[in-house]
Amino acid sequence: MSEPFDVVDLIRTKRDGGELAEAEIDWVIDAYTRGVVADEQMAAMAMAIFLRGMNRDEISRWTAAMIASGGRMDFSGLSRPTADKHSTGGVGDKITLPLAPLVAVFDVAVPQLSGRGLGHTGGTLDKLEAIPGWRADLDNEAIVRQLEDVGAVICATGSGLAPADKKLYALRDTTGTVEAIPLIASSIMSKKIAEGTGSLVLDVKVGSGAFMKDLDDARELARTMVGLGVDAGVNTSALLTDMSTPLGLTAGNGLEVRESVEVLAGGGPQDVIDLTVALAREMLDAAGRTDADPREALNDGRAMDVWRRMISAQGGDPDADLPTAKETETVAAEADGVLTRLDAYAVGVCAWRLGAGRARQGDAVQAAAGVELHAKPGDEVKAGQPLLTMHTDTPERFGRARQALEGAVEIGGTAATPGQVVLERISG
Amino acid sequence: MSEPFDVVDLIRTKRDGGELAEAEIDWVIDAYTRGVVADEQMAAMAMAIFLRGMNRDEISRWTAAMIASGGRMDFSGLSRPTADKHSTGGVGDKITLPLAPLVAVFDVAVPQLSGRGLGHTGGTLDKLEAIPGWRADLDNEAIVRQLEDVGAVICATGSGLAPADKKLYALRDTTGTVEAIPLIASSIMSKKIAEGTGSLVLDVKVGSGAFMKDLDDARELARTMVGLGVDAGVNTSALLTDMSTPLGLTAGNGLEVRESVEVLAGGGPQDVIDLTVALAREMLDAAGRTDADPREALNDGRAMDVWRRMISAQGGDPDADLPTAKETETVAAEADGVLTRLDAYAVGVCAWRLGAGRARQGDAVQAAAGVELHAKPGDEVKAGQPLLTMHTDTPERFGRARQALEGAVEIGGTAATPGQVVLERISG
Repeated sequence: MSEPFDVVDLIRTKRDGGELAEAEIDWVIDAYTRGVVADEQMAAMAMAIFLRGMNRDEISRWTAAMIASGGRMDFSGLSRPTADKHSTGGVGDKITLPLAPLVAVFDVAVPQLSGRGLGHTGGTLDKLEAIPGWRADLDNEAIVRQLEDVGAVICATGSGLAPADKKLYALRDTTGTVEAIPLIASSIMSKKIAEGTGSLVLDVKVGSGAFMKDLDDARELARTMVGLGVDAGVNTSALLTDMSTPLGLTAGNGLEVRESVEVLAGGGPQDVIDLTVALAREMLDAAGRTDADPREALNDGRAMDVWRRMISAQGGDPDADLPTAKETETVAAEADGVLTRLDAYAVGVCAWRLGAGRARQGDAVQAAAGVELHAKPGDEVKAGQPLLTMHTDTPERFGRARQALEGAVEIGGTAATPGQVVLERISG
Repeated sequence: MSEPFDVVDLIRTKRDGGELAEAEIDWVIDAYTRGVVADEQMAAMAMAIFLRGMNRDEISRWTAAMIASGGRMDFSGLSRPTADKHSTGGVGDKITLPLAPLVAVFDVAVPQLSGRGLGHTGGTLDKLEAIPGWRADLDNEAIVRQLEDVGAVICATGSGLAPADKKLYALRDTTGTVEAIPLIASSIMSKKIAEGTGSLVLDVKVGSGAFMKDLDDARELARTMVGLGVDAGVNTSALLTDMSTPLGLTAGNGLEVRESVEVLAGGGPQDVIDLTVALAREMLDAAGRTDADPREALNDGRAMDVWRRMISAQGGDPDADLPTAKETETVAAEADGVLTRLDAYAVGVCAWRLGAGRARQGDAVQAAAGVELHAKPGDEVKAGQPLLTMHTDTPERFGRARQALEGAVEIGGTAATPGQVVLERISG
């Protein structure tokens, strides 16, 4: 036994409400990565952290230890600053697609290393894979080259970044220890810091379709993450944004690509435009491009130009037709009035059940499956008018998908103003 | 997936302070035994239980589910009532050795299924194995036969009783989830109830050498266990007994056998006699033998007769010399005065380091290793007088064994009365 600590002692320290020392945190993460600390021991530790918490010093060290478990990317050789965005995940959240090329217009490199979806929120890579020929996997050299040539890249996260986080995340998923703010914050930030960006904007979602159901929790998560970024020398800010209803009018892979292209063409739903521009503004300011006008770059086609080059560089055909679903089915409004609620979580589960998402890692997703909305909260509707259309290649799924919408739609008597997408801004 | 529950949902329920339903508890224990619930999931559940607790209904059902995971013993065919004793473990706690034959004198069957030691407290089977020829392993038929013929049996617990508890206990040991009262109580009582005794006396130790360091915790544990016994139809009571200093004058396997034989011969240290008689009184009352006089049966040789037959029945030679250690070393008093403290935990660790205990399951123990005390709290001592003698076959251990005693001995200026062994009685 040449190990400097006994993991049972460290579990007991946290269990009894104590603080873990820096050397203890470094060791437990390293020993877990090496397999010296077993899954059941880390599960007990994760639950103890869940219920006892970690202070800022502990979270910061925990994050640093996870970064140290693997390699780091280095964009310091690029001729321009880098800016990155991370969203905590929402329904219809396709913002990365228009945002990355939009920011790149202004000579800021956007290395957007992304994941696949699990559960009711879709994954950015799943969406782009609806484009014929597009490939998610690039090696580091190709990433750097594309950032230099095109300015933006959206691709899969390499396996070498924060392997401790990868292992711990899979464990948390099966042990009921996902929703703890110290563990969420350190997981996200270890990956983002290891990716080596100069500045980072966090889109922390709040509402039924998000991880964080209420504003206080979302604010605490955002503040924790911004603190971790600042501690690590990354210029970090966060926007708290609404996820009580889906973003835009689509949830599903190909459907969301189509809507993203509409936004890049100067159209698209107002909430998607607003959030894309707000996040671009944050990234551009952080990268020193305070004079840039992102809204104009959506309208004049410059963002679309970068998008086309970005898709082509990864083997995709930006002019190809997107796949369409074999079958569609419409859900109609049941009364006259104003649509007062269209629940994000329910729409996410509906799209997932139609085939847009996966139940287990490694499952395939349908490129054309999903939900297309015809009305949003604040819109007036008439009884019998189509509220949304479900798309799938496997129509036997319509029944369970429709069940997901039970209780998710409310139609009221009086007009309501649609809420703002951006609720609050948090900076370091 | 034909499983009725998702273990992550159940972990989250307990994590968030909720109550587990009976069907949920039945399933989680059964699924863990079957391997459907993984170790890391049960570890997270155990930590959630540790920090959130379980109410009496939950603990009772948890215990019942662990019993249902295996077989039960049945002593209903015996011609006499059964009574059993369980101690939560202490330093020098050899009470089972004189107690089982003593109670059997009065035509009460004593099926004392026991374990081996781990850590600073010794195991009953390790002690008896110091007797040449004695065997711990008996099959069920042999146990019943010996209970009918001799009246008492001390042997190893069969593997078929409460296998869920066995698996869970090993997991708790490595995940920092041992000390939770609901988990301790259900672990002990699942085994004891599965063993099928008609009545049960619990010896719940309190003090530095015990699991429970303070009286409130010990009382809560005792009450919880008595409640579980009563719920299961077992006539159960508990004594809270002092474990601030070792029981008797010996800690170590062969040394404790020798002292037990002294007690069975009508001699021995007063605290060992007192506790043996007090526990015998409880067991005899519970079995309806209210007229029995256990103190007399120690003095007149009847308990010794049963002891000799009990040892012989399991292959042991009651007349054989007990092994003696190759080396001894004495620790002397450093001042004149009254011995006011001789810490149980320190003496336990000292004996353990000398070779009397094991660090890991399956390690061998030394039959002759241990600590022999020459004074107890309340005794007057002179500087230079031997306080205790350390025994071992491996003298290189003396150094670390002696270190365990640092700060464990206090000699004061004024006389102190030795405390009572039995602190409190708790009945159903």
